[in-house]
Amino acid sequence: MNLALLFDEDFVAPDRVVLRGRRLAHIRSVLGANTGDRLPVGRVNGLMGLGEVLSLTDSEAELSVTLDQPPPPPLPLTLILAMPRPKMFRRILQTSATLGIKDIWLINSYKVEKSFWQTPWLSDDNLRENLTLGLEQAKDTKMPGVHIRKLFKPFVEDELPALLHGKEALVAHPGTSAPCPTHLNRPTALCIGPEGGFTPYEVGKLEEAGCQSVHLGPRILRVETAVPVLVSRLFDACL
Amino acid sequence: MNLALLFDEDFVAPDRVVLRGRRLAHIRSVLGANTGDRLPVGRVNGLMGLGEVLSLTDSEAELSVTLDQPPPPPLPLTLILAMPRPKMFRRILQTSATLGIKDIWLINSYKVEKSFWQTPWLSDDNLRENLTLGLEQAKDTKMPGVHIRKLFKPFVEDELPALLHGKEALVAHPGTSAPCPTHLNRPTALCIGPEGGFTPYEVGKLEEAGCQSVHLGPRILRVETAVPVLVSRLFDACL
Repeated sequence: MNLALLFDEDFVAPDRVVLRGRRLAHIRSVLGANTGDRLPVGRVNGLMGLGEVLSLTDSEAELSVTLDQPPPPPLPLTLILAMPRPKMFRRILQTSATLGIKDIWLINSYKVEKSFWQTPWLSDDNLRENLTLGLEQAKDTKMPGVHIRKLFKPFVEDELPALLHGKEALVAHPGTSAPCPTHLNRPTALCIGPEGGFTPYEVGKLEEAGCQSVHLGPRILRVETAVPVLVSRLFDACL
Repeated sequence: MNLALLFDEDFVAPDRVVLRGRRLAHIRSVLGANTGDRLPVGRVNGLMGLGEVLSLTDSEAELSVTLDQPPPPPLPLTLILAMPRPKMFRRILQTSATLGIKDIWLINSYKVEKSFWQTPWLSDDNLRENLTLGLEQAKDTKMPGVHIRKLFKPFVEDELPALLHGKEALVAHPGTSAPCPTHLNRPTALCIGPEGGFTPYEVGKLEEAGCQSVHLGPRILRVETAVPVLVSRLFDACL
């Protein structure tokens, strides 16, 4: 936690927050903060700044906050991801938030096991918690949006063409001939398949909707590795 | 497992292997292979090819192997990493092997907790197992070397200058003014600090040894995210 993300319900006055639970534990145990210390804070979808510890007990910390810095710029990326295996999904959410991705679509694919959609990590609370952890790691405040589409065909036929409008559109597809471009630095939509990849039918549907197939070289990367590798390749802004 | 990595002890004849344990379980349960099927295999530090299943029982699989393909090119990167937290370390090992990193140095730093060095993941067997998983993911055979240096000062003073000879040498250091270069594509040594970063003293010692401090932008990345982001930025070969 390189920044404590503040939500509306944390505010007890316009410039004062009370923190409990995970953030309190972190402030006490990891940061070892005392009254008078100033800690990085940011308001969700708002400005960042410092919070001065006014009081600190076993049950809560009260901070006086000054918010005057904008968060880092978002990546102009729409990430369209075949629903990953749950234990990987949580880390991918956090990493995506840390990298500055703000628009995440979770879609179905033939090789997505039905059970993946049952994971508790897809609940609103757990999505928010894991995205928060990613933002706090990065020192960012802008909460990503997550869209869940459990049917492949209606998504690619009815929604995807409009979603791709005005964007470079890529699908990471091992074995195709075009390498992934570098330094695009403009609005981009990137589709990443499940373990084992999209099927040829699915790649065909994504191409029909306007996506270009690109490869990631001879090495087969896990999705959680492919996301930072691709983001770093497509955008200078992440560095 | 996109390839089964074969070790000397698996060979019962020059072109025949017997597999048990994890690889057998994967061949049976995940791949659902049958006698006559051909699976991607590779000999550690050697060639890759196909293994034809000759027999398959509950306890072992016998394969006839033809090895005629070179593994993908290695990255010309020496990764010098402050020893990560154990639960992250295992994933970083796997990811580094998947990305094609062949030379990994684990060093001490002020913010490396002493307990990190006690992890069982540092045993020879566990290092080999996790690097194997990373290679099998990537479809690579060349086993990375891992060097453990539990004292910072003797390492940077006595060993690092020779290690950096003929290489670009970088230390990822948040808050410095130079951004990390792109497309270096030549022999490079990259130092990455612990959570919380190297201390100013440590950065000074690394710079004395020949490293240039570079930053990764406004976002603070976890080490497990920084490794693929940096590799992707420094080398086109990974894609």
